[in-house]
Amino acid sequence: MQRIGVLTSGGDASGMNSCIRAVVRKAIYHGLEIIGINRGYSGFVDADMGPMNLGSVADIIGRGGTILHTARSKRFQTKEGRALAFENVQRFGVQGLVVIGGDGSFTGASIFQQEYGIPVIGVPGTIDNDIAGTDYTIGFDTAVNNVVEAINKIRDTATSHERTFVIEVMGRNSGNIALAAGLAGGAESILIPEIPFNVEDICKKLLSGIKRGKLHSVILVAEGAASGIEIGQEIKEFTGFDTKVTILGHLQRGGSPSAFDRILAARLGAKAVELLMAGETNKMVGMKAGEIVASDLSEVIGKASPINKEMYELAKILSI
Amino acid sequence: MQRIGVLTSGGDASGMNSCIRAVVRKAIYHGLEIIGINRGYSGFVDADMGPMNLGSVADIIGRGGTILHTARSKRFQTKEGRALAFENVQRFGVQGLVVIGGDGSFTGASIFQQEYGIPVIGVPGTIDNDIAGTDYTIGFDTAVNNVVEAINKIRDTATSHERTFVIEVMGRNSGNIALAAGLAGGAESILIPEIPFNVEDICKKLLSGIKRGKLHSVILVAEGAASGIEIGQEIKEFTGFDTKVTILGHLQRGGSPSAFDRILAARLGAKAVELLMAGETNKMVGMKAGEIVASDLSEVIGKASPINKEMYELAKILSI
Amino acid sequence: MQRIGVLTSGGDASGMNSCIRAVVRKAIYHGLEIIGINRGYSGFVDADMGPMNLGSVADIIGRGGTILHTARSKRFQTKEGRALAFENVQRFGVQGLVVIGGDGSFTGASIFQQEYGIPVIGVPGTIDNDIAGTDYTIGFDTAVNNVVEAINKIRDTATSHERTFVIEVMGRNSGNIALAAGLAGGAESILIPEIPFNVEDICKKLLSGIKRGKLHSVILVAEGAASGIEIGQEIKEFTGFDTKVTILGHLQRGGSPSAFDRILAARLGAKAVELLMAGETNKMVGMKAGEIVASDLSEVIGKASPINKEMYELAKILSI
Amino acid sequence: MQRIGVLTSGGDASGMNSCIRAVVRKAIYHGLEIIGINRGYSGFVDADMGPMNLGSVADIIGRGGTILHTARSKRFQTKEGRALAFENVQRFGVQGLVVIGGDGSFTGASIFQQEYGIPVIGVPGTIDNDIAGTDYTIGFDTAVNNVVEAINKIRDTATSHERTFVIEVMGRNSGNIALAAGLAGGAESILIPEIPFNVEDICKKLLSGIKRGKLHSVILVAEGAASGIEIGQEIKEFTGFDTKVTILGHLQRGGSPSAFDRILAARLGAKAVELLMAGETNKMVGMKAGEIVASDLSEVIGKASPINKEMYELAKILSI
Repeated sequence: MQRIGVLTSGGDASGMNSCIRAVVRKAIYHGLEIIGINRGYSGFVDADMGPMNLGSVADIIGRGGTILHTARSKRFQTKEGRALAFENVQRFGVQGLVVIGGDGSFTGASIFQQEYGIPVIGVPGTIDNDIAGTDYTIGFDTAVNNVVEAINKIRDTATSHERTFVIEVMGRNSGNIALAAGLAGGAESILIPEIPFNVEDICKKLLSGIKRGKLHSVILVAEGAASGIEIGQEIKEFTGFDTKVTILGHLQRGGSPSAFDRILAARLGAKAVELLMAGETNKMVGMKAGEIVASDLSEVIGKASPINKEMYELAKILSI
Repeated sequence: MQRIGVLTSGGDASGMNSCIRAVVRKAIYHGLEIIGINRGYSGFVDADMGPMNLGSVADIIGRGGTILHTARSKRFQTKEGRALAFENVQRFGVQGLVVIGGDGSFTGASIFQQEYGIPVIGVPGTIDNDIAGTDYTIGFDTAVNNVVEAINKIRDTATSHERTFVIEVMGRNSGNIALAAGLAGGAESILIPEIPFNVEDICKKLLSGIKRGKLHSVILVAEGAASGIEIGQEIKEFTGFDTKVTILGHLQRGGSPSAFDRILAARLGAKAVELLMAGETNKMVGMKAGEIVASDLSEVIGKASPINKEMYELAKILSI
Repeated sequence: MQRIGVLTSGGDASGMNSCIRAVVRKAIYHGLEIIGINRGYSGFVDADMGPMNLGSVADIIGRGGTILHTARSKRFQTKEGRALAFENVQRFGVQGLVVIGGDGSFTGASIFQQEYGIPVIGVPGTIDNDIAGTDYTIGFDTAVNNVVEAINKIRDTATSHERTFVIEVMGRNSGNIALAAGLAGGAESILIPEIPFNVEDICKKLLSGIKRGKLHSVILVAEGAASGIEIGQEIKEFTGFDTKVTILGHLQRGGSPSAFDRILAARLGAKAVELLMAGETNKMVGMKAGEIVASDLSEVIGKASPINKEMYELAKILSI
Repeated sequence: MQRIGVLTSGGDASGMNSCIRAVVRKAIYHGLEIIGINRGYSGFVDADMGPMNLGSVADIIGRGGTILHTARSKRFQTKEGRALAFENVQRFGVQGLVVIGGDGSFTGASIFQQEYGIPVIGVPGTIDNDIAGTDYTIGFDTAVNNVVEAINKIRDTATSHERTFVIEVMGRNSGNIALAAGLAGGAESILIPEIPFNVEDICKKLLSGIKRGKLHSVILVAEGAASGIEIGQEIKEFTGFDTKVTILGHLQRGGSPSAFDRILAARLGAKAVELLMAGETNKMVGMKAGEIVASDLSEVIGKASPINKEMYELAKILSI
């Protein structure tokens, strides 16, 4: 292993830059060369790539997003596209690949590895924390902190006006962001795709809270569970309360990464380089029970990453 | 003047608490008593009010929202409602009133003063910065900083994905928040109700930016100018760009007040007490050209507060 | 178990309030009564305590510090002081005690339990993360984020002036804060008490960095390893560089708790109540390998909590 | 005027980058060329300078510090040094100079202009807000917000431990940062060089506050007024209170600029270019009474910028 390629793929996540920095510096520390591939598989197909050095990653540790950019590539999903990517692998002398992204990105990496034999290591980078094989994905902690900060601000106005607020958060098919931010932010109800819910029950809880003197309520809705706007409408109809809806959208992704995400990103990125150096392939690095570990990509791709039910129950108990 | 009442009314704004603290402490410093009226004119009508002391305002200087709460009151708009409020004025011995709020709140205060002769002083507290007679309203600086912070986060993801983002911000009929945040955040285009705009021109600017190598664009839309969702749709249709829309909503209002808002709030609140002590009435305090001044409420209510055209032109020049 | 007492002791840590809230709400959820004890063991001796309800913990989830206050108590270290505390236990009907604090606080709890048989459960709350039996203590993640944020700001000025900065951080005898913040903040060198260091080596690294084009350097010093001021002086003498020193001090403790600390605090607080309800005593709750677990206090008190050597090596590799 | 040079000099201030961006973009908008001079007058003497374009200032609007770096230059204080700088003026075809900095930087600019006739315009960039001819300098609002944020965090721990905290802040010979941050942060006492103070009086106020039930106190000390460590020692001796000292140091300078500083920087930078285009020289741009104005450098250099006494009195009244 003399030259490693690195790319970010899928939705951007805060901490991806800290991970790129770790991959580059760890590789250079061990005397390897490193090729940065821009715009995910799209740049891989288009040869939008080039050498990186220590200076390429100076001053990026604290910046959100990814300096390598990211994109969805339809062409890499075709045999022709992947053939072009392999040409670029040969042209740039890439002998191993670090792919920072989510489930879809790993699927692409796995197929490419099978077709062309180039070693690939996946690093879980997505705010959704929905990847099997790791307790945390890069970007999740920052996203949860972004949501908690937004809840804090909205709670100021909710308290002042004695209103009910519905906040829709990201997470695709996963309720992880909603659950963690809801527990951390003290949300009165948390609606996630993993647990059936009933708007009538939520409204009854709201009404009994009001009776007990609660001045406001915050309902967190995972985008995979329901539409915040529809839930807001239903609550308004049932309770008659002045109900406002906020859809946090893409601001959840950005911002300077949290310390937790930076450390996770550094450890995972360095481990990915170690695995390539050790001749491994088709693995994903992850953090399980506090340890940095490697799983087979086949055990990760398409596998469910269940929510923590104990945390869900706790959130319910603490929001009485 | 022995006893002053204070209330917050209309939309909450960060810094209202700093202002309440200043009113209470300034009054107590001069040996006055102070009555806090909860939930705006609603609590005034309902006698939801009571004495405040130094301890009532301990530890609130840095908290968003308003500890006195705020509400819209339909009853205070009726003669009967105001008669009830006057009964409470007599019952609680209130001899002067400080009203922290916006245009509608001042209208109510002015009518009440004319009917019952009780001295009133208005303090401009609204994130919209749309009040004549003051260069800045309490809450505006914090709201603009909230929007700029959101732009920063969205720009991380916009850059990573090379996307166009439309961000809808508050301001009711005013473009002040959009203009200030757009200039501070480096938005590519700013759509405000005070200046006619044309989506085609915006799109052409986007396209020429892309040609020149710009990787992303942020368009700021004041809620009074257009719907962010509609503008996003039109841009997508015209340019074919992957265009995302974020509606910041109520998180703009909250959060710990900025230093600027805290100082403004302290100065305005103290001045309001001074005016009541000096026998003044029907005035609004404000900051004009760096000085704390008083205007007649009649010169303020319903008057336009034009945007700074020079800043608008500057924002255009700097976003080339 | 009908009535539980809760206190915070030792240095305050952000997230203690989230933990108090969890203890109170979890207890009330299960029909228990809860007594809040103010100012740590000091209030325990002085009967500065009283019942808490749902309202006592409203709106505290996001506030730094501890609403129960904390203090060091010399009297509780005496037999007489503990006898007074036991009188208060009887007077207030306290049947079990949750102690949120660090090593010293657990020692006091353990002695008290042995002498009077009252069940006690410890919850690790200290920014230092130096407690055996848990991977994380409440307040550590927030403190590390505070330090990283300070590094970010100092790096702006360090880069602009091309200077070397020495930043002294807290941690008493532990290098955990320095190590985590140094890895997350990209510090050029990290000085901790667990690992011998040599200022000459640090200076040589600085000089070779400058040669390679580095414009600035940040050195993190754990207070238990050395004095920041002395290290700054030595570096200045050896290298001749314009070296500035910042001692972050108590601002590391405060601020709204991070999402991670809030969730950890909620889970640990709830578990402490569960243990008391299950008839347990002399335990500390903690998070090990992602799970909430209980350890015997005797296995925790006075035990070393070693740093993560792998992380230390990684920080060195990434700061080349 | 075809080609303008721009440099930053003296202590760095957050918002300098927003100002550089405005100078560059405004100049390019009007068809001018722009030369960036690195490391202040030091780079001017050493020819460390080169052309800037739109891309040079992409993505810097929200970054603290200055991309042009800054340094103190002893050589520019000599005739020989300035002769070298003039050679570089001729070599790079610079026809006008924008100097972003403080009093010392303007002095250098003024002498250079007198000796070599090259038009110079000063832009006030310093966190100290101690420049005559402008109500605000670039970086002041951000620095004050940084201090207020630190006060917030320290207050959490101060309240929890019922302690007295002394916080030393920057400002050189000016009390402006201490005064603004003290008023905004609700400090119990503010020690500034412009107003005589007496530690005994401060202690008596502390003691009477404690009697009245205050749980903690925060004393702000401007570095130009006294040493925080000495004041802390004196308070401890007089009152016997557990008194902690924090010296905020360089973290006050950095961080992403506030919206206020970004807007101020944009307006001042653009105005500086306009003045050069209009054939003006030896002026400083500033904001007076909300308007962007120009003053003669001779009326600015060495002139006192008095504090706002009304604000000082208000801070005293509100801290009863």
